[in-house]
Amino acid sequence: MSFESEIINGLDLISADFKNDIFDLPYEECGLIGIWNQDQASFAAYYGLHALQHRGQEGAGIASFHEGDILAHRDFGLVNQIFQSRKDLEELEGSSAIGHVRYATSGLNDINNIQPLVFHFHDGPIAMAHNGNLVNAQTLKEQMEKQGAIFMTTSDSEVIMHLIRRSPARQFRDKLKEALKEVVGGFTYLFLTEDELVGVCDPNGFRPLIVGRMPDGGYVMASESCALDQIGASYVFDVEPGQMVSINHEGIHKEYYTDNRQQAICAMEFIYFARPDSNIHGVNVHQARKISGKILAKEHPCPQADIVIGVPNSSLSAASGYAEAAGIPYEMGLIKNQYIARTFIQPTQELRERGVRMKLSAVRKVVEGKRIVMVDDSIVRGTTSKRIVALLKAAGAKEVHVRIAAPPLKHPCFYGIDISNTRDLIAANHTQAEICQIIGADSLEYLSSEGLIEAINLPSDAPYQGLCMAYFNGDYPTALHDFEQEYLAELERIVKD
Amino acid sequence: MSFESEIINGLDLISADFKNDIFDLPYEECGLIGIWNQDQASFAAYYGLHALQHRGQEGAGIASFHEGDILAHRDFGLVNQIFQSRKDLEELEGSSAIGHVRYATSGLNDINNIQPLVFHFHDGPIAMAHNGNLVNAQTLKEQMEKQGAIFMTTSDSEVIMHLIRRSPARQFRDKLKEALKEVVGGFTYLFLTEDELVGVCDPNGFRPLIVGRMPDGGYVMASESCALDQIGASYVFDVEPGQMVSINHEGIHKEYYTDNRQQAICAMEFIYFARPDSNIHGVNVHQARKISGKILAKEHPCPQADIVIGVPNSSLSAASGYAEAAGIPYEMGLIKNQYIARTFIQPTQELRERGVRMKLSAVRKVVEGKRIVMVDDSIVRGTTSKRIVALLKAAGAKEVHVRIAAPPLKHPCFYGIDISNTRDLIAANHTQAEICQIIGADSLEYLSSEGLIEAINLPSDAPYQGLCMAYFNGDYPTALHDFEQEYLAELERIVKD
Amino acid sequence: MSFESEIINGLDLISADFKNDIFDLPYEECGLIGIWNQDQASFAAYYGLHALQHRGQEGAGIASFHEGDILAHRDFGLVNQIFQSRKDLEELEGSSAIGHVRYATSGLNDINNIQPLVFHFHDGPIAMAHNGNLVNAQTLKEQMEKQGAIFMTTSDSEVIMHLIRRSPARQFRDKLKEALKEVVGGFTYLFLTEDELVGVCDPNGFRPLIVGRMPDGGYVMASESCALDQIGASYVFDVEPGQMVSINHEGIHKEYYTDNRQQAICAMEFIYFARPDSNIHGVNVHQARKISGKILAKEHPCPQADIVIGVPNSSLSAASGYAEAAGIPYEMGLIKNQYIARTFIQPTQELRERGVRMKLSAVRKVVEGKRIVMVDDSIVRGTTSKRIVALLKAAGAKEVHVRIAAPPLKHPCFYGIDISNTRDLIAANHTQAEICQIIGADSLEYLSSEGLIEAINLPSDAPYQGLCMAYFNGDYPTALHDFEQEYLAELERIVKD
Amino acid sequence: MSFESEIINGLDLISADFKNDIFDLPYEECGLIGIWNQDQASFAAYYGLHALQHRGQEGAGIASFHEGDILAHRDFGLVNQIFQSRKDLEELEGSSAIGHVRYATSGLNDINNIQPLVFHFHDGPIAMAHNGNLVNAQTLKEQMEKQGAIFMTTSDSEVIMHLIRRSPARQFRDKLKEALKEVVGGFTYLFLTEDELVGVCDPNGFRPLIVGRMPDGGYVMASESCALDQIGASYVFDVEPGQMVSINHEGIHKEYYTDNRQQAICAMEFIYFARPDSNIHGVNVHQARKISGKILAKEHPCPQADIVIGVPNSSLSAASGYAEAAGIPYEMGLIKNQYIARTFIQPTQELRERGVRMKLSAVRKVVEGKRIVMVDDSIVRGTTSKRIVALLKAAGAKEVHVRIAAPPLKHPCFYGIDISNTRDLIAANHTQAEICQIIGADSLEYLSSEGLIEAINLPSDAPYQGLCMAYFNGDYPTALHDFEQEYLAELERIVKD
Repeated sequence: MSFESEIINGLDLISADFKNDIFDLPYEECGLIGIWNQDQASFAAYYGLHALQHRGQEGAGIASFHEGDILAHRDFGLVNQIFQSRKDLEELEGSSAIGHVRYATSGLNDINNIQPLVFHFHDGPIAMAHNGNLVNAQTLKEQMEKQGAIFMTTSDSEVIMHLIRRSPARQFRDKLKEALKEVVGGFTYLFLTEDELVGVCDPNGFRPLIVGRMPDGGYVMASESCALDQIGASYVFDVEPGQMVSINHEGIHKEYYTDNRQQAICAMEFIYFARPDSNIHGVNVHQARKISGKILAKEHPCPQADIVIGVPNSSLSAASGYAEAAGIPYEMGLIKNQYIARTFIQPTQELRERGVRMKLSAVRKVVEGKRIVMVDDSIVRGTTSKRIVALLKAAGAKEVHVRIAAPPLKHPCFYGIDISNTRDLIAANHTQAEICQIIGADSLEYLSSEGLIEAINLPSDAPYQGLCMAYFNGDYPTALHDFEQEYLAELERIVKD
Repeated sequence: MSFESEIINGLDLISADFKNDIFDLPYEECGLIGIWNQDQASFAAYYGLHALQHRGQEGAGIASFHEGDILAHRDFGLVNQIFQSRKDLEELEGSSAIGHVRYATSGLNDINNIQPLVFHFHDGPIAMAHNGNLVNAQTLKEQMEKQGAIFMTTSDSEVIMHLIRRSPARQFRDKLKEALKEVVGGFTYLFLTEDELVGVCDPNGFRPLIVGRMPDGGYVMASESCALDQIGASYVFDVEPGQMVSINHEGIHKEYYTDNRQQAICAMEFIYFARPDSNIHGVNVHQARKISGKILAKEHPCPQADIVIGVPNSSLSAASGYAEAAGIPYEMGLIKNQYIARTFIQPTQELRERGVRMKLSAVRKVVEGKRIVMVDDSIVRGTTSKRIVALLKAAGAKEVHVRIAAPPLKHPCFYGIDISNTRDLIAANHTQAEICQIIGADSLEYLSSEGLIEAINLPSDAPYQGLCMAYFNGDYPTALHDFEQEYLAELERIVKD
Repeated sequence: MSFESEIINGLDLISADFKNDIFDLPYEECGLIGIWNQDQASFAAYYGLHALQHRGQEGAGIASFHEGDILAHRDFGLVNQIFQSRKDLEELEGSSAIGHVRYATSGLNDINNIQPLVFHFHDGPIAMAHNGNLVNAQTLKEQMEKQGAIFMTTSDSEVIMHLIRRSPARQFRDKLKEALKEVVGGFTYLFLTEDELVGVCDPNGFRPLIVGRMPDGGYVMASESCALDQIGASYVFDVEPGQMVSINHEGIHKEYYTDNRQQAICAMEFIYFARPDSNIHGVNVHQARKISGKILAKEHPCPQADIVIGVPNSSLSAASGYAEAAGIPYEMGLIKNQYIARTFIQPTQELRERGVRMKLSAVRKVVEGKRIVMVDDSIVRGTTSKRIVALLKAAGAKEVHVRIAAPPLKHPCFYGIDISNTRDLIAANHTQAEICQIIGADSLEYLSSEGLIEAINLPSDAPYQGLCMAYFNGDYPTALHDFEQEYLAELERIVKD
Repeated sequence: MSFESEIINGLDLISADFKNDIFDLPYEECGLIGIWNQDQASFAAYYGLHALQHRGQEGAGIASFHEGDILAHRDFGLVNQIFQSRKDLEELEGSSAIGHVRYATSGLNDINNIQPLVFHFHDGPIAMAHNGNLVNAQTLKEQMEKQGAIFMTTSDSEVIMHLIRRSPARQFRDKLKEALKEVVGGFTYLFLTEDELVGVCDPNGFRPLIVGRMPDGGYVMASESCALDQIGASYVFDVEPGQMVSINHEGIHKEYYTDNRQQAICAMEFIYFARPDSNIHGVNVHQARKISGKILAKEHPCPQADIVIGVPNSSLSAASGYAEAAGIPYEMGLIKNQYIARTFIQPTQELRERGVRMKLSAVRKVVEGKRIVMVDDSIVRGTTSKRIVALLKAAGAKEVHVRIAAPPLKHPCFYGIDISNTRDLIAANHTQAEICQIIGADSLEYLSSEGLIEAINLPSDAPYQGLCMAYFNGDYPTALHDFEQEYLAELERIVKD
């Protein structure tokens, strides 16, 4: 038997397998950074993007404003692959800049989709970066195309700029406010003009955006607070839902562009996406995860277990919380090969299979003969969980009790996370008992919705304490527009099955 | 003030800062894999090298034997950068192969130094891979050059082949045995000929080499057992000090090529270098580290501390052991950016500085206001420790008590680890109290030599239970040959200072 | 003295030094090819682009239509650098395709400027390629931007598509006809939709566009007939000024989109730009050049000369004509290094200087002691001629009589050739006697305008027998729009000087 | 029918199809340059290599001597691909350097075969470059391997260095002289040590090597005089057969290392390989070719022909000579695409086929209806000639009379030109009448051996006026050693057939 084929059918370990097949649109989970009034702003943007690299590994770019013109450098790859020498950054002169890291989405490897987007208008250039997804982009695009508009990219990101340029208002911020009234979805935007750096958050605040101050007077806006720490900036405030923040040489200007706003921060930012050292609206991600593990231990104890292990890296916090609350030793039973990038960056099935099977190893001496609580942050299709359980058992684990530090994922996301459609979500199609059997676990339990909300404990009186819980309960904070029909059809199919 | 210069003077966080300046020779800490009797052996070698990637990131290569010829592919970079498509591996046809990952050493970026080395002789080709360092290579080279020998590489690795070819013996293994009598140092070698795969370990066994069996009858030899797990092989035995192992179509043949042998496994393999899921002579690396943390907690408790944190990634095991033994909560207070490769891969000072400062972040919400036990595996120059302590204090830590899970590093390594010369080893030049002050810690303690030996607990009755403790006590298991004079001069200098 | 600096001040040999500095706009001298109804159309496009490579070396691309979608591959570099494997072409599936080679223009190395441009509209995609330059593009762009249009590229090429999309007409060809009424300048366009391949020529026919038929029923349109020969197609017709040609599954449809048309083919296509084996409106380029040499010999004989040499490669035809008419031996006195690409591909001054001085060598044994007629096709700044004359004299030439196979270049081109502005044209600023002295020749003579027209001898009763002679006499066939003011100011300056 | 397959079976135009299949050894037709006592010597080497690029396109490199060390940069590709920035050259510091361009030979793409070779000995480094081929290399290698020598490359070039290092003499030049007594074949070598630049020519002088003087006192040695012209050096002398030339700070030292010498310059250097502007032993290559055309016209006139055309580029000189002598117009009937590199650089059949068919085009307007004399420099396999004749006839030529400006190629070359083995040489296997029929010509005639010798007219009283005529008559100037048996077997086979 050939070695190669054996391996392919062997372990295919994915920590979380997010992939949108049916709704084949350019979803974007990305990272943004903006720098204002800082010598060699591109350097600060570069270091900031490093701290945001986990939010997107497909491509990245930086655009700076220098003497009335925008200079830009962007490409496919990781930040340190795109910017390889000091010269690459020095060429992006100027004291203001914005940067972007992009998540691998569809197979459409078009360099035009790498941001920041740069627009050269006769009345001055504008650079722009976007994180999130609009639910009415197709409708808006089609309307504007019928009026002669031309979209050069296949991404949603360009739509807002067309709306801005079509606005009859005279000032950029007024044009932007009008444009923002047209778009629906989850988004944060950064705009860089000669006069100002503008950051915007959607009316529900699905995606985070943080404002910081540099030690010597400059400003930074970034998708996560870890980017502020990286470059030595101090925290100022989180941009609020429906808020537009402009930073210019007069200082910071904040205003709400709509009255129709209600916080619904994407719960997945806490569960999976954000970096543990980031804080979102005052809540530390690591601590929220650790508490979720503690609550999970109370909701679903496993007293017979010998050790608790977490699936690296995103579930380690929850696992240590579980262990602490349960009084069971926390052990390092799974090792992640640090030289393998996240599964998501490989677009082809072949690359995916190769990368994936290299990702995790079980520590035989730790797991052999043990009854194990394996804490993970989510189950998407179930294939990953199945393989990790098999990997642990192959290494001699006597029992594997799976505990998920979030409720079952039953509904897709339309606001910027590339989560599987309903058909592929195992929890949308199977009972908990069936899932337990499919993944080969000795028991399976999920954290309750209440437990998750309590663990995160946002200081908000909005529904679900200011979280978007749509993946778990289908309660979408906005109308679904372009996606409504397909989603309803999916629900109907499931009911019929 | 420019942002850039501020950052450069800011955090420069290195987990372990190994760099040989004075003894500017091509030290090699590398990883080896050999595959025998396996369809598409290059695929197995490739996956195995992934598991060994932590042992060397400068370059890698694979050589396979096919129809009387050796096919090879090697280059600078990580394994997944060098082999980018299935075709790259398919072209390396044949059922036997050896692979190599190479550690960045001197600035000499010569492709000739990337292994496996391939030799085309009129009586058949041989491929060879080497891990370790000889202490008498210069002497041997000069002797042979005077007799007309030509060395194409600047590395030590080629020396053994010249000795082999000059041997009057007729069989390859006999030639090899004669050659091995000439070389002194720490080494493992793999040789691939048409007839056999031969693995060799030096008389002290400084570097590990493990033999495994593939499910369908083939064999594998690798520097660490994690590579066996990666490719589904089962453990057979560790190659012993002074042993030569030949695998051919008749099976495995073992013999000692010298009687003058005594186990002295490099302690740094356990402390820092090897992967936690690897076992060396039956001892699991993660468990040895965890126990070292437990012993450290007993030797040097810190009862007033609120939390224990480890420096990611190599010190997490020891930190969790310390926490468990001390009954103090284990927390994730430092985050390592997973998109930054190990410091070692950047050869220039400039790249080094850029990469390094991106590497670690403190989790403010975790460390703020806390008295912290910070567990690390070693202090080399002290600069890294100083910066991590500063980083934690800048994030609000009230006290930082540094606990090192190994004794002080006072002597250089001549057997293949690129450790600093004596001048740069802070513990060779300063008292413990001075070091504590230099790094800005509130207290500093080291694990005792006895504690380290007990934690690893090798089943051996050799001195130090079969460990090489030379870094800590200068008791080198071999004569130093080419390095003796410089080393003695260094010692003298220190005494004078 | 350093070798390097000596060389830089030494020979700097440029066959023709076209560079637009003042009118710093993205002039485009490019090459187009379109393929219709041909299996694996991308392969035919690729081979055709090779034959057009002399028309542009900055970048190239191919877009094919496949199952309702457009597939495209484009990049900087030569055609054979961009398409390196059969797979690159196989991925561009479909039976219709268009391709483009692009001339290096400004320093703006924006991948967006590499064509074909691909537009993804909700009512179907369109690919487009453009050769030439509009004189009212800036005016049109600004008008449309004020209405909200967004241009993603800095090139003129996008303008026509915005006009098309804004047209209220319903059919593509009707929209296109309306759009064509707005644009002024020299241009050929190719458009590829699902239903048809459309080629368009401006009302003066500045740039050539030829239609051919493939042996098995498909069609091709290309900028030069040499591309037809390359891929085995037979000549059908030249697209006429003001004509739109549509090829679809019903066959070829031709129509004039304007009545206001008059042939004015760019004379530089014959003199310098086109390949000698191409025919334009029935006139072979090599033969036109050879006849221009013959007429030049009659207008300006040089009976005392020993040999005639041409400046490789574009002046060899004219030189052999001169030699034949004058009865003086034609010799190979200058050698062009075939491994140096045309000067134009190096955008920086430094690269330019390096490449240029490698370009030509004198054959000492041929020129030594000889009185030479040196035939060239043009003098732009004079620096090149000066250096070739110096090169010949350094190799021992006794006399160098320069004969130019075209009239003096006195006016810039606004229709797509990147010719120097007036300030840099030596003939706009100096008398013939001054130029002769500046370049160090023993005599200097130009072909007359009448001689040029007679040599080309187009079958047309338009002014100048259907040629654009504006470079020589300033008689521009169209209004100059965006360029008018600058041009008039230039003229005024020259008069004053 | 698919377009692709049609083309592949269509035109496959190769100007000269040299390929060694049976004697599958690393033949080397290469170019050398050495620079002594010149600031930034690497720059001069770089520009010189450009002028020698036609002698090898597979790879190139430069090595310079700086402060006791050798710095080197070498890679696959053309010179301008390998050295892309001024920095690449600036890093090769020092006032002496040697450079090498390498011809694509076997499929063995081993970077080790790219020269200059650099050797780091304990008594100082040496760089070396080699052009040519030894006929006893295998024998010597095997002898030395049996004594323990290790050869790192698969090329012959390394052999001489092993002989040098094994010599008991004390001075480098004495060692070299001893080594040169062992090697047999066609070769020139350059050696660069700290003290001197040494150039060597084999006892028959098969390959040229020229010495020049830089304007400011430095020296250059190069394979062709065109490299001297390129960098502004003046000619001093041709290295003689059996001569060793050493340049050091005392000046030039010449001596013969053997008495057994007799000039036999490779005739193919004049016929095909060298650049037309080069002079070899005082004979200009272009002029030799032109005279060969004139003699050919006298030996084999074609009075009924309308025009004479040459196969670009190497046959243009001969064609113009034929036309001049015959009084028939010389026309440009074939155009070579200047953007296609020489066929030789593509090692795979697929690349070869693609490149080749793009190479030549017929100018229909020139050849249509004409009786043509087509002058070429050689017929190797006949496939190229066949296709050019077919190409001309497809373009309308009425008759094609092929005239070859050299005698028939009947014997392989063992001295460094990668010419076909006997089996593939059409003239070794077919009569002239058969060849004429195979290639589809209306008549076929070759230049006589006497005519070729008269055309080149070397000032020598050696046999054949100092030319090696072995390709034409099998009279090899040396014993054939390693190749003798195979060659004799081939001859026997031909006699039997």
